Amino acid sequence: MEKKTIQVALLGLGTVGTGVYKVLQNQREEMLSKLGAEVEIKRILVRNLEKAAKKVEDDSVLTNRWEDIIHDDAISVVIEVMGGMEPARTYIMEALAAGKHVVTANKDLIAVDGKELLDMAGTHHSDLLFEAAVAGGIPIIRPLKQCLAGNHITEVMGIINGTTNFILTKMTEEGMEFEEALALATELGYAEADPTADIEGYDAGRKLAIMASIAFNSRVTFDDVYTEGIAKITAKDIKYAREMGCDIKLLGVARNTDTGIEVRVHPMLIPSAHPLASVKDAFNAVFVHGDAVGDTMFYGSGAGEMPTASAIVGDVFDIARNIRYQCSGRISCTCYKELPIKQIGDIRSRYFLRMQVDDKPGVLASVASVLANNSVSIAQVIQKAKSSETAEIVVITDSVEERHFNDSLAIFQGMSVIRKISSVIRVYGE
Amino acid sequence: MEKKTIQVALLGLGTVGTGVYKVLQNQREEMLSKLGAEVEIKRILVRNLEKAAKKVEDDSVLTNRWEDIIHDDAISVVIEVMGGMEPARTYIMEALAAGKHVVTANKDLIAVDGKELLDMAGTHHSDLLFEAAVAGGIPIIRPLKQCLAGNHITEVMGIINGTTNFILTKMTEEGMEFEEALALATELGYAEADPTADIEGYDAGRKLAIMASIAFNSRVTFDDVYTEGIAKITAKDIKYAREMGCDIKLLGVARNTDTGIEVRVHPMLIPSAHPLASVKDAFNAVFVHGDAVGDTMFYGSGAGEMPTASAIVGDVFDIARNIRYQCSGRISCTCYKELPIKQIGDIRSRYFLRMQVDDKPGVLASVASVLANNSVSIAQVIQKAKSSETAEIVVITDSVEERHFNDSLAIFQGMSVIRKISSVIRVYGE
Repeated sequence: MEKKTIQVALLGLGTVGTGVYKVLQNQREEMLSKLGAEVEIKRILVRNLEKAAKKVEDDSVLTNRWEDIIHDDAISVVIEVMGGMEPARTYIMEALAAGKHVVTANKDLIAVDGKELLDMAGTHHSDLLFEAAVAGGIPIIRPLKQCLAGNHITEVMGIINGTTNFILTKMTEEGMEFEEALALATELGYAEADPTADIEGYDAGRKLAIMASIAFNSRVTFDDVYTEGIAKITAKDIKYAREMGCDIKLLGVARNTDTGIEVRVHPMLIPSAHPLASVKDAFNAVFVHGDAVGDTMFYGSGAGEMPTASAIVGDVFDIARNIRYQCSGRISCTCYKELPIKQIGDIRSRYFLRMQVDDKPGVLASVASVLANNSVSIAQVIQKAKSSETAEIVVITDSVEERHFNDSLAIFQGMSVIRKISSVIRVYGE
Repeated sequence: MEKKTIQVALLGLGTVGTGVYKVLQNQREEMLSKLGAEVEIKRILVRNLEKAAKKVEDDSVLTNRWEDIIHDDAISVVIEVMGGMEPARTYIMEALAAGKHVVTANKDLIAVDGKELLDMAGTHHSDLLFEAAVAGGIPIIRPLKQCLAGNHITEVMGIINGTTNFILTKMTEEGMEFEEALALATELGYAEADPTADIEGYDAGRKLAIMASIAFNSRVTFDDVYTEGIAKITAKDIKYAREMGCDIKLLGVARNTDTGIEVRVHPMLIPSAHPLASVKDAFNAVFVHGDAVGDTMFYGSGAGEMPTASAIVGDVFDIARNIRYQCSGRISCTCYKELPIKQIGDIRSRYFLRMQVDDKPGVLASVASVLANNSVSIAQVIQKAKSSETAEIVVITDSVEERHFNDSLAIFQGMSVIRKISSVIRVYGE
């Protein structure tokens, strides 16, 4: 055992960086007892020294020069909370190459360049940990890599974006439409000024790629993930879903099947009795199925200053233990397989389909026969008259390959009795 | 790095032992890629060699002599799944003293003698891991010790007994009375022939003691835990609870307060919107609150052959990694504080109180004034006439010290207008 004081550098002092600073302060008295070592912030890299000075006790730790960190051999751990691809990527690669250990919350980077970064860490026997990159404060990476290592994990499914879950909760509980709920999320600070990455499922897609890589021991990158957002979901869809015993959630779904890995983010109807359906507001949850453990779920805050900092400091403490016990790099990249990724068209799913049709005899029969001709069988159907002229048909299908379902949709679009296809949403289950 | 093959001994080949055997078989092909090492069962200690022979591929691994294991230096890990206090305790102590690492699922033992066992492991720089001792397959020990290490954890609350949760679920969803639901649980194999340890909350109490010790970094033993079972809960209590927006669950509650640690297992009303309320049937869940992470929850199967084996094999794989990296004992006992344990009388709680009273004017007023005189304020009340002569009063109080509430109960028992105190159940919340 060696090193009683472990010096770290923090890259970035925004929301998450400030959280890390606070959590390390809060743990100061207990660190030595807890870890047998003290973790001390030696340097903080910031852009604006003056602005940052207000956030720290002693502003001599601040610097705007990366050289002050990368060339300081006393600094053994770099905590990257700047976000974005560059210069974060370069800094992390240089830190690992210099034999430093790295903790990052950067999902954009890990979801794209995870392999290169982990390879660099492996070469230098350094730790590269990123618990905070997925689902904020919720412990999920370590449970997948260690606690559930005795499983063949077949499914990871999660509500991994708080903004969209908040919006869908408001739409469900208060009957708001999407635009109104988004405006509220923006007002309350749950949504960013440009909410695209959240709303369109890109943020969830990055987290899903990271989790799938670990769960299935095979590299999945963000490019592999099919994404579809929630902007088209209406309060009416949610109302029908509830009539059919379901809630609508934006889910990241990763499945390890005999024919390859499925990775997709899209809105989905799930039974209201499913544990994920009760995950409300900005909370996140990840549902994992393994051959030994069966169903498990991990729930908590997926974002925010302190929850994200909780995950980061957990990683820093683990690195500190590894340094003391001289076993850095003890758990590195676990992607030892190369499994194929399935195309979305090949994926089987159930569907919720809402259509406006002419209110006259035989329309439901023709809808049903188009579906039947494309091998799509119907599980549930609701038909309601809307006016004297039009009716609304809502169908939930049994499981079907996406391409076959799309063939039916193409036929519907050419039928004069079908005035509009209002919604097409996937449904959970086989 | 050293040792590519790690030889282990399994003590016991009952349900859980068989599960461990199967999970290690299932992982055989992937172990080397996953861990950089292979884990091989060299010996299995059983009582009946003949009976055990049917359960294994090669019966030459079987033995009924502990000496074959303790004196075999090639065996570096002992997996104890016999259960009970002795001889498990002696075997574990001897194995640790001999420098072997130990994985155990034995909550009875850890909840009582955890300190002695961990001290022995510490002295010999051995690993003693017991993820399976709490909440079966659900990852909770490692998340508490590592992922959430940057938190001051203030509360751990869980549904940590599947049998009682199954019984309460049946009582809630199908209106069964306790005896009927217990009979069903026994029939389905959820309850043991002697269900006392489950029904009376002892099993949950042991798990709670272990979790509290880790979460609060201060030793809590089973003796410290106040326990109260579910046998007195009626379908009617559950019906009233639901009218008041709550479900009744058997909860283990551990809180780290300024005046000491509270550790108690008892039935409790929790709001139906609380994540724990949606945990049904034999599932378990543990809710953790930390100052940084906020609320988190861990959900899954709390018992059973394969889920428990999942947790055990996760521990074995971690030990294998430590052996390879020569960092055994990397995380040992984390109880570095000595916090006082509060007496149940000093604990504040809200209460649900159901009473049969004379159906005449002024009775509710006298009930209310007795409560008021003992500083107990009323949050909700329901009064229903039952017959021409009696009425039923159901009260939920605000938070009060248990001793003051008990003073009120003593007075009620002496009042002639109060015919019977039918139920007293604690209620979640401040």
